[in-house]
Amino acid sequence: MKVRSEQACFGGTIGFYSHASREIGAEMNFAVYLPPAAVAGRRRPVLYFLAGLTCTEETFMIKAGALRLAAELGLILVAPDTSPRGLGLPGEDDSWDFGSGAGFYLDAEAEPWRRHYRMFSWVTAELPALVEARFPADGQRRGIFGHSMGGHGALVVALKTPGAWRSVSAFAPIANPVSVPWGIKAFGGYLGPDRARWADWDATLLMRKAPFPGPILVDQGLQDQFLDSQLRPDALEAAARDAGQEVILRRHEGYDHSYWFIQSFIEDHLRWHAERLGAPL
Amino acid sequence: MKVRSEQACFGGTIGFYSHASREIGAEMNFAVYLPPAAVAGRRRPVLYFLAGLTCTEETFMIKAGALRLAAELGLILVAPDTSPRGLGLPGEDDSWDFGSGAGFYLDAEAEPWRRHYRMFSWVTAELPALVEARFPADGQRRGIFGHSMGGHGALVVALKTPGAWRSVSAFAPIANPVSVPWGIKAFGGYLGPDRARWADWDATLLMRKAPFPGPILVDQGLQDQFLDSQLRPDALEAAARDAGQEVILRRHEGYDHSYWFIQSFIEDHLRWHAERLGAPL
Repeated sequence: MKVRSEQACFGGTIGFYSHASREIGAEMNFAVYLPPAAVAGRRRPVLYFLAGLTCTEETFMIKAGALRLAAELGLILVAPDTSPRGLGLPGEDDSWDFGSGAGFYLDAEAEPWRRHYRMFSWVTAELPALVEARFPADGQRRGIFGHSMGGHGALVVALKTPGAWRSVSAFAPIANPVSVPWGIKAFGGYLGPDRARWADWDATLLMRKAPFPGPILVDQGLQDQFLDSQLRPDALEAAARDAGQEVILRRHEGYDHSYWFIQSFIEDHLRWHAERLGAPL
Repeated sequence: MKVRSEQACFGGTIGFYSHASREIGAEMNFAVYLPPAAVAGRRRPVLYFLAGLTCTEETFMIKAGALRLAAELGLILVAPDTSPRGLGLPGEDDSWDFGSGAGFYLDAEAEPWRRHYRMFSWVTAELPALVEARFPADGQRRGIFGHSMGGHGALVVALKTPGAWRSVSAFAPIANPVSVPWGIKAFGGYLGPDRARWADWDATLLMRKAPFPGPILVDQGLQDQFLDSQLRPDALEAAARDAGQEVILRRHEGYDHSYWFIQSFIEDHLRWHAERLGAPL
């Protein structure tokens, strides 16, 4: 693991790191915030945030306003980058919604992506193992959340590996990617044309097969410019109703898709996770 | 005034604007956060933040984590850009510490800067008049603060126009610019070689002539990479002692010059100003 920078913040440490990922076959970037209790060496719960299209491991840490309360609650925060970078694969930098910055937190199956675009395996296994080896993060108390593409990621990760996460929430997730342009482009590219393969990476469809063993918090702005065309929280809500999954879907008048929206409700999400991860409230 | 964007945040509105500035002779950018009370039309105190070298009107709003508490305290926040942009003056984009992004909040006297680099007049007169005409900002309850070059700016503005500001504070200000490389380069360029002209724009020297009629809060990180070479809080402290100026200078072990430092102590500054501006505490 390479330390790119470490700086004091709210009595803890915000650090930016990279490591040579076996799953990805390349150097991968991630950020970790250690609250004061973890800096003092105490093993603390750990909360992963998956960011959206075009974001990096920096975006959430800089823009979400999460560190103040994470310090107070004693939560370790981990923010992975959103894709491999600089592999030189044909087309990897051609679009903002596919390839670099748009890994969609799945394990690709189609060429030329399948060797490297293994974000699911990196985020669910290799990265947590590294974090728990290098920082005082309690692997028995993991939570996950995310925004937009990362909201999709958090829901899919929790639904596919429910035993690994005690808590899950999302901001404006791409809740039913198989039915919207972002998801159709990404899944078509990473998984290939056989749509039967796509169902395994769609939160709404996964939830219909096997709900998450706990409630899920979702916040959605009603002035979100992508609400109807790309996000489909209504589809998730219908699946939850049919599957008996508890989803607390809060719709907020006036809010859009930005980090101004995320920071307005970040406190509720941190407290949601802290309550389920056994952090002091 | 041109509205570039307006978005909901913490029940208020974060907006990015521009206007054709008479003082600057060009289009100037600034950001305004209106807390919920101001959105509801109530006239609220207004707090100006002057940012540092290379920053824009976006930096403070995105990185300082100030909006949550400003919403709660009912403080309007205003963040001006740090210089004119795109004028085409010779050399304006040659350095990161002079010209674009480095206006130093003074009124230039030397060619070719004197016509346009009038940040002091813009920030102290033209911009507040515009803000108070277009937003429910109470011109009788103005505070000012800033960081690094903007900490210098806030101190100089308060010391030169004390009647206009009820409260002042700074993060890691360039406290004695005539004695450090950043200040010598900027003042030499904007004011010319006659060092007698520089004293009018140096907080330490101004304070020795006429203190601000109220206490000044200054936070400084002890791991700040610019502490000894560029900032000189010790000089400000000595001047305050000699002049009978109350300066509360807090030195923080472990913190550097970044917005990770600023956000760690932003709450204390907002409460400092709110107390003096008559905002609810």
